[in-house]
Amino acid sequence: MLDCAIIGGGPAGLTAGLYTTRGGLKNVVMFEMGLPGGQITQSSEIENYPGFFDHTKTGMDFMDSWMEQCFHFGLTHKMEKVLKVKKVDEHFELTLESGEKVESKTVIVATGSTPKRAGFKGEDEFFGRGVSTCATCDGFFYKNREVAVLGGGDTALEEAYYLSKICSKVYLIHRRDEFRASPLTIQRVQKTQNIEIITNTHIKEAIGDSMGLSRLVLENLNAEQSVLEVNGIFVFVGRNINNGVLKSDEDNFICEVNQYGEVSVDLKMRTSVEGLFVAGDLRADAQKQVVCAAGDGAVAGLSVISYIQEME
Amino acid sequence: MLDCAIIGGGPAGLTAGLYTTRGGLKNVVMFEMGLPGGQITQSSEIENYPGFFDHTKTGMDFMDSWMEQCFHFGLTHKMEKVLKVKKVDEHFELTLESGEKVESKTVIVATGSTPKRAGFKGEDEFFGRGVSTCATCDGFFYKNREVAVLGGGDTALEEAYYLSKICSKVYLIHRRDEFRASPLTIQRVQKTQNIEIITNTHIKEAIGDSMGLSRLVLENLNAEQSVLEVNGIFVFVGRNINNGVLKSDEDNFICEVNQYGEVSVDLKMRTSVEGLFVAGDLRADAQKQVVCAAGDGAVAGLSVISYIQEME
Repeated sequence: MLDCAIIGGGPAGLTAGLYTTRGGLKNVVMFEMGLPGGQITQSSEIENYPGFFDHTKTGMDFMDSWMEQCFHFGLTHKMEKVLKVKKVDEHFELTLESGEKVESKTVIVATGSTPKRAGFKGEDEFFGRGVSTCATCDGFFYKNREVAVLGGGDTALEEAYYLSKICSKVYLIHRRDEFRASPLTIQRVQKTQNIEIITNTHIKEAIGDSMGLSRLVLENLNAEQSVLEVNGIFVFVGRNINNGVLKSDEDNFICEVNQYGEVSVDLKMRTSVEGLFVAGDLRADAQKQVVCAAGDGAVAGLSVISYIQEME
Repeated sequence: MLDCAIIGGGPAGLTAGLYTTRGGLKNVVMFEMGLPGGQITQSSEIENYPGFFDHTKTGMDFMDSWMEQCFHFGLTHKMEKVLKVKKVDEHFELTLESGEKVESKTVIVATGSTPKRAGFKGEDEFFGRGVSTCATCDGFFYKNREVAVLGGGDTALEEAYYLSKICSKVYLIHRRDEFRASPLTIQRVQKTQNIEIITNTHIKEAIGDSMGLSRLVLENLNAEQSVLEVNGIFVFVGRNINNGVLKSDEDNFICEVNQYGEVSVDLKMRTSVEGLFVAGDLRADAQKQVVCAAGDGAVAGLSVISYIQEME
């Protein structure tokens, strides 16, 4: 029986591992199929994580030192995929892809969310080098320069507006005629002078070189192409919430989630199920910032310790 | 009219400054009488802030690089004490100690809390070098060693229990005969084998050398003295919640607080007053960890940006 099973190895999961093991729990396992570190490892530069301000270092360099620290106090990493979490009496049963079952007193789910890709040519190639899915993270790198935003929902329009305060101009590209965002948000964007709205248009290709993105090839409904000279394109075409492990055999969620499938938590990262905690981008109202996910992980880890103490 | 007034210059206030200015707000002022950095600057070593794992560096070294980063994007530091925050129509009015009034669209209060000192000789001298007020932060430095805890309330007993999982032995020193903690917590501590309870006793003096604390002189009700050979003493004799700026002229709080005077917030760090946000140890359910306070600061900063966008 594990003291704590952590599912997901991004900033939230790693920090939960640090806090639970450093707090004296003996059997803590973090389940992560890939290399731990999360989305941030794909970034070429980070400057909004407090205490880390070195422009020569990439997201991968950044997470390297994290991992060393988080594993230092006894956290175990298991490279296995968890399919399902189920509460059985007072503990939890995890089903792994291998078929193996693992029992744990507590579970912290930190599987995050995955921004969807739009699917244009060059999108993957220039990801983290001009293609971004986070205006808060990367907007400042384009201060007083022109950028593009792709998408037509609330997030795309809100982020375009956020970028309009930092960048000299924002091209808002949307494949349809009308936006799916709230009327007030649409109005605000429409009356912002340095946002240029380009509808009925999609991105055909991102072009650049070893320095990163240099321009976008756009195509409208009449198959007419044009070139937009920008070094940054922010893609907001939806996110997959990685909540699959929290679904029961009957495909219901085992804990309370909101309309987007994000898990409802309180300030202690407790879900509606006792002993089950969630941290990071998977939860409702997450800000999708490394420092916020790390804070969540610490809170969840400390909540697990309190919960186990109360069980004893 | 400021875009945002931040009151307090610890990890929460500094990170709020980073996120608001990097997010494009022009007039952001952080009010902090002393050197920014907060309580952590008094620590001799930090190993639970993810990404910072260098045993040769002190809390002061740690905060130095933070400050550079947080001021890099345009945050202004005003070395003035804020006495009062008042909502006037749609904005806020701050009264400074100098008598000056400052207007701001939004306010983030991050004044934290201050652990009380017990008042024994050597307590200040060895603070951060054996005397601690945070078991989560410093407990691990005494792994498999003996430590002492001073206090008789819920926090003291919970922290003694937390330490009992990490340290070989915990001496729980309390000046009275009975504890003020919840019955369940008292029971749990009483039946923990490696917690030795020493009641009717106070600490007379902390003694050590340049390496830090080496022993405590205890004194009981009969004025009999004894020596306890420990390198760590954790003091939990209460905390002052620094919520004074949130009191009105009539001495009521301008926003909702809990029974301890900690400010009620939601997951976006919104208080019960629109445009007023709180981050860090001042809020309810705070874990009093640097990474949590920093996460709060980022959330509050981003909430301020959203709030201002919606005002426009």
